[in-house]
Amino acid sequence: MPALQPQPPAPGRVWAHVGQPFTPGPHDVLIVGAGRMGTALALALHVHAPHRRTLLVEEGGLPNEDGATLLAPGVWTLAGLPDALHGAAHWTRAQLLTLGGDQLQSRPYLTLHAGAGPGRLPTPDALAGHPESLTLLNPASVPWATPQDALTYRPGLLAQQAAQQAIGQGTDLLLNTRVTPHPGGQVTLERLTVTNTHQIVTHETFTVQARTVILATGAQAPAQAEHHLGVHTRHGRAYRQTPHLNAPSRPGSPVLHVQGLTLRPQHDAYTLIPAVHHRDPHGYEPVGGHLTGVPTGLRRETLEDLVGLMDAAPVLATDALHLGRSLSDVPGAWLALPHGDLHAPPGHERLDEHTFLLLGGPLADSLGLYAADQLARQIAAGSEA
Amino acid sequence: MPALQPQPPAPGRVWAHVGQPFTPGPHDVLIVGAGRMGTALALALHVHAPHRRTLLVEEGGLPNEDGATLLAPGVWTLAGLPDALHGAAHWTRAQLLTLGGDQLQSRPYLTLHAGAGPGRLPTPDALAGHPESLTLLNPASVPWATPQDALTYRPGLLAQQAAQQAIGQGTDLLLNTRVTPHPGGQVTLERLTVTNTHQIVTHETFTVQARTVILATGAQAPAQAEHHLGVHTRHGRAYRQTPHLNAPSRPGSPVLHVQGLTLRPQHDAYTLIPAVHHRDPHGYEPVGGHLTGVPTGLRRETLEDLVGLMDAAPVLATDALHLGRSLSDVPGAWLALPHGDLHAPPGHERLDEHTFLLLGGPLADSLGLYAADQLARQIAAGSEA
Repeated sequence: MPALQPQPPAPGRVWAHVGQPFTPGPHDVLIVGAGRMGTALALALHVHAPHRRTLLVEEGGLPNEDGATLLAPGVWTLAGLPDALHGAAHWTRAQLLTLGGDQLQSRPYLTLHAGAGPGRLPTPDALAGHPESLTLLNPASVPWATPQDALTYRPGLLAQQAAQQAIGQGTDLLLNTRVTPHPGGQVTLERLTVTNTHQIVTHETFTVQARTVILATGAQAPAQAEHHLGVHTRHGRAYRQTPHLNAPSRPGSPVLHVQGLTLRPQHDAYTLIPAVHHRDPHGYEPVGGHLTGVPTGLRRETLEDLVGLMDAAPVLATDALHLGRSLSDVPGAWLALPHGDLHAPPGHERLDEHTFLLLGGPLADSLGLYAADQLARQIAAGSEA
Repeated sequence: MPALQPQPPAPGRVWAHVGQPFTPGPHDVLIVGAGRMGTALALALHVHAPHRRTLLVEEGGLPNEDGATLLAPGVWTLAGLPDALHGAAHWTRAQLLTLGGDQLQSRPYLTLHAGAGPGRLPTPDALAGHPESLTLLNPASVPWATPQDALTYRPGLLAQQAAQQAIGQGTDLLLNTRVTPHPGGQVTLERLTVTNTHQIVTHETFTVQARTVILATGAQAPAQAEHHLGVHTRHGRAYRQTPHLNAPSRPGSPVLHVQGLTLRPQHDAYTLIPAVHHRDPHGYEPVGGHLTGVPTGLRRETLEDLVGLMDAAPVLATDALHLGRSLSDVPGAWLALPHGDLHAPPGHERLDEHTFLLLGGPLADSLGLYAADQLARQIAAGSEA
């Protein structure tokens, strides 16, 4: 009875550049943005709504080099999460282990403190197996540590893996294409190409209709909702830089968290993930700072935080810290802040009858896959096409 | 014995423009900035250090139209102040009554709430004598009110009065003069003038030496300390706009405070004093916002707050609110944030052996005169010239 055998799904199509002729097929769902949230949603839709035909559209490549996904810390942890979010975080962890496979690295996560407290160990004891980590710190300044667990991973690689799996199950992927959403589920697609003189130009334009459109464009999504759909939101954004710290780390070295700063072992050294204190105002263009008269690529607010941390982490006062000379020397990206709030979990919001907004933000490393799954369930629960 | 009779002090000299020849006399104290803090300090020095010779220097006129003093709300109140600051606030109130004289207006200060609590009255009862105030609000949204007292005044006028009294007691005043401080108490004075083509140019330059220099230039002071003295501080600043609300008020109408917004009766109408949520980042240039596609002079963050308040204060949804079309339509100024903190009281900081920084900030209306007096005492306690 061959008709009862489950057939492997036909893989989706991929249009990477304008040399590949694109014909808009019928799509039920159009996901704008192939970052961590958009790709996770595409994959989750195959679980919850396997009969929907999904088109994933991305303005750049996969992953987009201008987005926040590539520079996201990739640190899954319960540290700092309220209890009410632990279930969602554990669900995300299990999904990460399924999806991320080889690239996931289990490590300790140590939050350092100036004072004693429940569950805190002396810092030298907590780092007994990690002398290379202890040399970064001044244990007299932060003598206590709370040990927790972390999984570290590369969100850009995760997005690629999710996209590949989704394509394997039938999602279509259209790269190098700019999307303008309109009320009523209509979207304009502009396939972009680069001229000999490095100008980005529109090669061809299509107008398509989808029952469901999801803006998963990170920090850009609220502005798109407002400009194109006329829907005002209170989501914010902040420009976060992630400078390099050239101090040795090993594959099992702990993530260190001290006074809001996260030292994330990466590439045998560290990436610094500074605290985000508040949204940046509308109209702000990131600029570098100055340290004792010398221009730095690091913005001033982050520089001030690092200067304030030099006592707890003396390594920050050494040449190991790459401050750069101009903004382009320090990796940085706009981070979405759901509801303008630093502690709001990732989530979605309905913008109109056809359109959702899906935002990751600061807690996407620990909760993003769960938020994408929740939206996929909601789309699946909608009336069938 | 005429020598024992107290002599009235010889009044100080005033150089308003470059047509008045200036000769740098010997001065012990040089105060940079004739805003509310600098003028209060000049006056307090006559109380605590009557033999010091003080030169007060101001880049603009008195009051400076680019500073924060002219646009400061001028609302003295205990509302929102922690108990530890009440003594300083009461001291400031007494000084305001002495100094401000006729211009001070005693009014109720009503903080409006969504829920009941100790000391709260029903909003209609609290506003029983002020029907014109009640019409601004939706009592169903903010049914409870905490009544307190306020004194309202014009900080620009206060600065003028303090400067005049200080001059009467011997302070010299140099207007339209830009000051560059240097380490060691040396300062460069550039007397400015305006050409026929409206360019501001330096007419003449002097270098003077003072034992004590005080930077009282508000939101500019931290940058001056850093650029000219090499002293890094963590003080911040925020661009605060104070839009006009064309709803009628009377001389005794209460100040209303609802969800962070202060409605300050002024000129038979209201001035709105929005909440400042956090510092603005280094390099931020204020820009206007958009409301349903129409450009506004009000910055976006403030606009969002006002939109969120329209339920509690429906008057904000009417034409009475002047949003403007561009930034220059809405009065605004850079507000200093001592220690980058919205709740830090005004205060001073020693920058080097010769130089102090004196900052007002968000609480200067209730505490500024006290902070200036404290610095005058410290200067007086220093070794005599």
